[in-house]
Amino acid sequence: MSAMLNGKFVYTFGSGIAEGNRGMKELLGGKGANLAEMSSIGLPVPAGFTISTVACNHYSENGKKWPQGLTEQIKKGITAIENEMGAKLGDGHHPLLISVRSGAAVSMPGMMDTVLNLGLNDETVKALAKHTGNERFAYDSYRRFIDMFGDVVMNIPHETFEEILEGLKEKKGAKEDTDLDTDSLKELTLMYKEAYQRETGSSFPSDPFDQLERTINAVFESWNGERAVKYRKIHQISNLLGTAVSVQAMVFGNMGDDSATGVCFTRNPSNGENKLYGEYLVNAQGEDVVAGIRTPQDIDTLESIMPKSYKMLLDIGGKLEHHYGDMQDIEFTIQNKKLFMLQTRTGKRTGHAALKIACDMVEEGLIEKKRAVQFLVEPQHLDQLLHPQIDEKITDGTTVLGKGLPASPGAAVGKVVFSSEKAEEAAANGEKVILVRIETRPEDVGGMSAAEGILTTRGGMTSHAAVVARGWGKPCVAGCGDIKIDYKTQSFTNGILTIREGDWISIDGTRGTVYRGKKDVVKPQPDESYHTFMEWVDEFRTMNVRTNADTPEDAMQALKFGAEGIGLCRTEHMFFGEDRIKAIRRMIISNSLEKRKAALDDLLPFQKNDFMEIFRVMAGLPVTVRLLDPPLHEFLPHEPEEIERVANDLGVAVSDFTQTVRSLREFNPMLGHRGCRLGITYPEITEMQSRAIFEAAVELNREGVQVFPEIMVPLIGTPHEFRNQKRVIDQSAAMVFEELGDSIEYTVGTMIEIPRAALLADQIAEDAEFFSFGTNDLTQMTFGYSRDDSGKFLNDYIDNGILKEDPFEVLDIEGVGQLVKMATEKGRKVKPGLKVGICGEHGGEPKSVQFCYETGLNYVSCSPFRVPVAKLAAARAALTHPTHPPAPSLRKRREGVTLEKVHH
Amino acid sequence: MSAMLNGKFVYTFGSGIAEGNRGMKELLGGKGANLAEMSSIGLPVPAGFTISTVACNHYSENGKKWPQGLTEQIKKGITAIENEMGAKLGDGHHPLLISVRSGAAVSMPGMMDTVLNLGLNDETVKALAKHTGNERFAYDSYRRFIDMFGDVVMNIPHETFEEILEGLKEKKGAKEDTDLDTDSLKELTLMYKEAYQRETGSSFPSDPFDQLERTINAVFESWNGERAVKYRKIHQISNLLGTAVSVQAMVFGNMGDDSATGVCFTRNPSNGENKLYGEYLVNAQGEDVVAGIRTPQDIDTLESIMPKSYKMLLDIGGKLEHHYGDMQDIEFTIQNKKLFMLQTRTGKRTGHAALKIACDMVEEGLIEKKRAVQFLVEPQHLDQLLHPQIDEKITDGTTVLGKGLPASPGAAVGKVVFSSEKAEEAAANGEKVILVRIETRPEDVGGMSAAEGILTTRGGMTSHAAVVARGWGKPCVAGCGDIKIDYKTQSFTNGILTIREGDWISIDGTRGTVYRGKKDVVKPQPDESYHTFMEWVDEFRTMNVRTNADTPEDAMQALKFGAEGIGLCRTEHMFFGEDRIKAIRRMIISNSLEKRKAALDDLLPFQKNDFMEIFRVMAGLPVTVRLLDPPLHEFLPHEPEEIERVANDLGVAVSDFTQTVRSLREFNPMLGHRGCRLGITYPEITEMQSRAIFEAAVELNREGVQVFPEIMVPLIGTPHEFRNQKRVIDQSAAMVFEELGDSIEYTVGTMIEIPRAALLADQIAEDAEFFSFGTNDLTQMTFGYSRDDSGKFLNDYIDNGILKEDPFEVLDIEGVGQLVKMATEKGRKVKPGLKVGICGEHGGEPKSVQFCYETGLNYVSCSPFRVPVAKLAAARAALTHPTHPPAPSLRKRREGVTLEKVHH
Repeated sequence: MSAMLNGKFVYTFGSGIAEGNRGMKELLGGKGANLAEMSSIGLPVPAGFTISTVACNHYSENGKKWPQGLTEQIKKGITAIENEMGAKLGDGHHPLLISVRSGAAVSMPGMMDTVLNLGLNDETVKALAKHTGNERFAYDSYRRFIDMFGDVVMNIPHETFEEILEGLKEKKGAKEDTDLDTDSLKELTLMYKEAYQRETGSSFPSDPFDQLERTINAVFESWNGERAVKYRKIHQISNLLGTAVSVQAMVFGNMGDDSATGVCFTRNPSNGENKLYGEYLVNAQGEDVVAGIRTPQDIDTLESIMPKSYKMLLDIGGKLEHHYGDMQDIEFTIQNKKLFMLQTRTGKRTGHAALKIACDMVEEGLIEKKRAVQFLVEPQHLDQLLHPQIDEKITDGTTVLGKGLPASPGAAVGKVVFSSEKAEEAAANGEKVILVRIETRPEDVGGMSAAEGILTTRGGMTSHAAVVARGWGKPCVAGCGDIKIDYKTQSFTNGILTIREGDWISIDGTRGTVYRGKKDVVKPQPDESYHTFMEWVDEFRTMNVRTNADTPEDAMQALKFGAEGIGLCRTEHMFFGEDRIKAIRRMIISNSLEKRKAALDDLLPFQKNDFMEIFRVMAGLPVTVRLLDPPLHEFLPHEPEEIERVANDLGVAVSDFTQTVRSLREFNPMLGHRGCRLGITYPEITEMQSRAIFEAAVELNREGVQVFPEIMVPLIGTPHEFRNQKRVIDQSAAMVFEELGDSIEYTVGTMIEIPRAALLADQIAEDAEFFSFGTNDLTQMTFGYSRDDSGKFLNDYIDNGILKEDPFEVLDIEGVGQLVKMATEKGRKVKPGLKVGICGEHGGEPKSVQFCYETGLNYVSCSPFRVPVAKLAAARAALTHPTHPPAPSLRKRREGVTLEKVHH
Repeated sequence: MSAMLNGKFVYTFGSGIAEGNRGMKELLGGKGANLAEMSSIGLPVPAGFTISTVACNHYSENGKKWPQGLTEQIKKGITAIENEMGAKLGDGHHPLLISVRSGAAVSMPGMMDTVLNLGLNDETVKALAKHTGNERFAYDSYRRFIDMFGDVVMNIPHETFEEILEGLKEKKGAKEDTDLDTDSLKELTLMYKEAYQRETGSSFPSDPFDQLERTINAVFESWNGERAVKYRKIHQISNLLGTAVSVQAMVFGNMGDDSATGVCFTRNPSNGENKLYGEYLVNAQGEDVVAGIRTPQDIDTLESIMPKSYKMLLDIGGKLEHHYGDMQDIEFTIQNKKLFMLQTRTGKRTGHAALKIACDMVEEGLIEKKRAVQFLVEPQHLDQLLHPQIDEKITDGTTVLGKGLPASPGAAVGKVVFSSEKAEEAAANGEKVILVRIETRPEDVGGMSAAEGILTTRGGMTSHAAVVARGWGKPCVAGCGDIKIDYKTQSFTNGILTIREGDWISIDGTRGTVYRGKKDVVKPQPDESYHTFMEWVDEFRTMNVRTNADTPEDAMQALKFGAEGIGLCRTEHMFFGEDRIKAIRRMIISNSLEKRKAALDDLLPFQKNDFMEIFRVMAGLPVTVRLLDPPLHEFLPHEPEEIERVANDLGVAVSDFTQTVRSLREFNPMLGHRGCRLGITYPEITEMQSRAIFEAAVELNREGVQVFPEIMVPLIGTPHEFRNQKRVIDQSAAMVFEELGDSIEYTVGTMIEIPRAALLADQIAEDAEFFSFGTNDLTQMTFGYSRDDSGKFLNDYIDNGILKEDPFEVLDIEGVGQLVKMATEKGRKVKPGLKVGICGEHGGEPKSVQFCYETGLNYVSCSPFRVPVAKLAAARAALTHPTHPPAPSLRKRREGVTLEKVHH
């Protein structure tokens, strides 16, 4: 590293110049880089310097020794501050006081933070009192310094000092700290020094350089403190050198009633209003505002108290917003009516505010649309806007019952029911219910649909409950292992509280929290800014966004959100209707091809009708239909009573039917007889489904509805499987076209969801016309995790830093991503124009969408409610790497159809 | 292809010269290449030529047209034959007759085979009669020609002619064909021609060139016949151009009593004795020998009938063996006492014969040891030698009940029992039983051990039953879906026959067949040749062969077979003993670390003792111990009564225990909470197991027993998992070494069995000291096949040619192999000396062993009974690709220990 080689460790700033800038976060930390930046654009930043992370790294790696030259550079830095301030560290007349703050490139809890008023000792405190003519202030500063130094440098618990202070206040009858007079503060200082001696065995250090060196070392060492190390391990942060240390001349908010200190946002972070938003305290220092000792005042009131300072703050806010191109979160201090800036950073905000701020700033000419899309709205901001949210401000005495996975965003409130039948019954009576199940199965969809929200105690981010709920935009907390359900007593417990059927609970699918009782819920309200913003998103986006939708309703919902086609239309859910399930069960129990065909013939009209409805909604847009995927036993009952009922219904002997159910049972259904393996064993299923698609498409085409079916064969692992199924599909097409005397265009492709398919993608691409990554299954098989069972250890894994993220939530770029890249490259090597998309749940997750863009995918497909999020992520990716677009020929939309035409 | 470019399609042979040779099988077919070879070494081969496969390919690809120049080249070829034979095709005085035979590089059922006596018509038959002075012979040849031409060229069923012949024989009172006199044969010829006219609508072609052209075309077309195409599809043969056609002067075994035709082996293919072995018929032609119309005579008798010819045959046999360096399977014809060779190829043989022939030929100086190892004994020959076999010659009225997977080789006979308890009971009473189960579970090992053989109706080549049986060398047929078990009635049925408890059955684990009743069984008898041969194998072998062994008995057995260490010692089987299972169950139900540790403390002495026993047997050799792998529920009972019994036994409430059992149940246990995932959730298990290993090793080391433990962490998917577990193991080591004041060397490595581990092998290799491919699981996850469930479709897949082989039997080099290569390369890139082995079931399968060698693995590890097979495969691989050995430093065996020392 060149900084190491040229031996520069200290970067000064102040009086309109700076050696650093905001781009140097890795070297100077976020705080140091922004202090330099503010200084260089002429803002009033107290003079100072930042010791680089390289110095910290040297210290850690070399037995706690400073690198050669650091002492001299720090001394020079101090001299520069002294010259700027006209004061001298340790000076008996005009002593310089300084602050020392840590700051890494990433904010990291557990690291030593701030020491203020460094440079005070029994001599300089007197000089300070004399020089400022404010003895009270001098001793107030001194006692604060001893407290902070003792706490953060010497590990004396802050409470030790706090107790002394409280004792003294009581003795003096003081209510607030400010009620203590100068003598009391003098007394307090003495008591603090005694405490210091008692706790450390040595007296409080009086040499300011000694004070400084110890503080810098404490900051360096905090980098390797237990909490910081653990934090980095969990977040798998390994690319940082260490922390930087910013040393800066003190300015004082505690110099009297014309002094103050505060924090504020340049705009309202809650609703986005273009108005300062924050708090301050008169005659206070540093942490007083956040410590809550006194109640801070609203920033608005500053205008009347210190109008000039307020005006200046406003100006600076504007200047910062203009400079940074974003709303800022700032810290400031007013010393004798003079304003100083101590920190600036981009402000966190709600989704609503994010959109308003983005639109306003473009309107105000502060930023360009491009910037608004790329940086001002986070994908999760959109999520907040599209789903109801628990109102976090209201504490209404409800109790958290447990934490599960945030499986489908949004909040829901309802009475507990434990079965789908009950859920449907209650919903029919107009009651709001939450369906609580250990896990859900396809036959639960009725109850799930009827419920306000779904809570399961087992299963992950891609469990049945999670996938279905996300598809509907219905709140769901999945895999909440904190609670145990007892179906017999119709209750669940978290070990402390027991909730019975009919009790109210609230669930927060955005965060994964389950509450007892009725929480207040904030309704979603996508406003004008949302629509404006999404138009800009579409302007910059180059990758298509489709939706996963199995019903016309879902498809319609997704179209409203701007989906550009269906990337995954699962056909098995279509089989669960009352009449249909009977037909599919008849097919399963058939022991001859003829009987199976007869049963399938009964299903054909249903399937055809389903496709007609979906194709009609998606007129002019591509629809990828996946052929039957789940193992057949998913369509059969499993409990003895159910088996008996269904057997009677089907008119077969219970014992025979039981035998069938048993023989289809699988040890690992995930790796069993499903997907194209079914289509190969029973080509008549593939035939029936293809026929339904083609008949529907041809008939609609005659009506003038443009249909672009893409038939997707699931679970391909060998090129031969694909060829086998493609032949069946092509034959069905030929037959239907012949019968109807009419034809349509269609393509046949495959899901890449088995590792072997990725490894053999070149061979598969010889016949396949498109690939779609089924990253749910691909993740399961690449990791060897069953999505239904991995809940037992995945949380532990994430807590221990073994995994950075849930791979079912965020695509595992390192592992699964290798297969995605490999398959895309191999496929396109054989067929350069191969259309490649993703239809796993990751298609709606921002980081994964970015990866898909970078890998050159043509589209991502996700559940309807995630379409806006995916679009934003795709637009941001395109703006970040404009050189990485998929081949333009692949991005061309269907001619004659624009999104607007179907959008309304 | 150059042959195509230079337009040469016809390759002549005869009279000691030939344009082809045995290396040209792809161009001339096996038959053509060997005819050319025999001719070129001066053997008496009737003159002829072979039309190359390139011509066939041109014919198929160009609308059934011959390539330019073929006609001329054939005519030239015929002229050459004519000159050689002094006869002319179609000549009215001395007509040439020729044979036409097909022959591809790979023998392929369903292809047109042979037409003899081509060139005969109503004119030439008379000339032949006159010229040979043998009218009967001439008409016998003619009627044969019409039959064969009609059958193979015109698709007239052979039965049409057969019926005419039989009718005539009856009419004439002839018993055998040879009883028909000349007039009868003339009459027959007429009747055949009429039949030809009737069936084809045209008269029998009389122009010999027309006859030849039509026959050649029929051969060409048979290449694309339905059966041949299907055969190639199933066997995934796609690299062949077509079939060759050999045209050759006829020699006649039907010219009277000094003529004969026969087939024989140069040595006895059954026991290897160095003596001609075969059959012949006097005055017969072509297919008569195999057609079984007359009973052929033993080749021995030829010595007395035609001593000169016999002597010559013996000489030629010797010459061929010397030339080909192997025992030959030959066809010959004697025409008027003159011997002609019509075909030679390497003879098939039994395992016993293969070893004897190999050793004898080396002894006789015919071949070198190297050749014996590389070519004369197939790996499956060794299998036959090590296991009892069903005596195939004896047909004792037994009935095949079904076919399953050949899961563990060898034959077994016994009475049917349906439970492990029954098996143990019966075995205790001295009864022989076959354990018949839908599938087996770890708790069945007692019954499996007691039974003569195991038959399951579900599960694949790597199912529990298969793996355990192979480990013991016990016969097993797995996944026999043809039969259905009804435990209630204690019977099974194949739909036709029902077999009850106590009925006798026989199973053939080498072929996967299940027979009703008691089959005769041939005992294995590895003799002197076996031991000699295996010494040679070890001489040429460069890759190590270890064994998978979980018990001292298995380890001992493997040592006897020459294993060079243990590549996989599973530790979970050690937990199934009476006292142990209780302790592990206590651990599972413990809800605190302390209780779990207490239960594990009880297990420690057992584990330690197990390791001591195994280490002692394997003194001086490496032992790879795999830490606990299966999900915990495998140790728990599942049936209600069992659950109740165990709960009482453990002293816990049945309801609580039921709840535990239920909560551990998994949807896809294969992808569940197992392997290192357990070790991470419960580090105390890893701790206990490591401690047991280290204590055992240190104690034995003190006794002077050399122990080289290699601790293997299963199911690694991320480098972080490995680091986590390695830390626990290293800490245990440090603790034990400290406590015992002594230390040993050990290494910690991982199984690569999850696709993601292969993808991230470079990162894992940073910490891992060795890799071992667990290709069973790697195959499951790469294909997405559950080994327990895939039986339902895998057979279909193989039958349909979707898969060439069962990937659980033969390593899938195309897919899974990519991951094996990738991981080896990535791992060695980071750590060049990384030791890499394989411990999946593929480690004992010859093709897979070859792949492992080519990939540069240091060792393969397989079940004890497969060690010799693996050794042979490894030696053959080393001889085939001597440039591919693993780095020599890696092949060095433990110093001071040679196999011989431990062997006896």
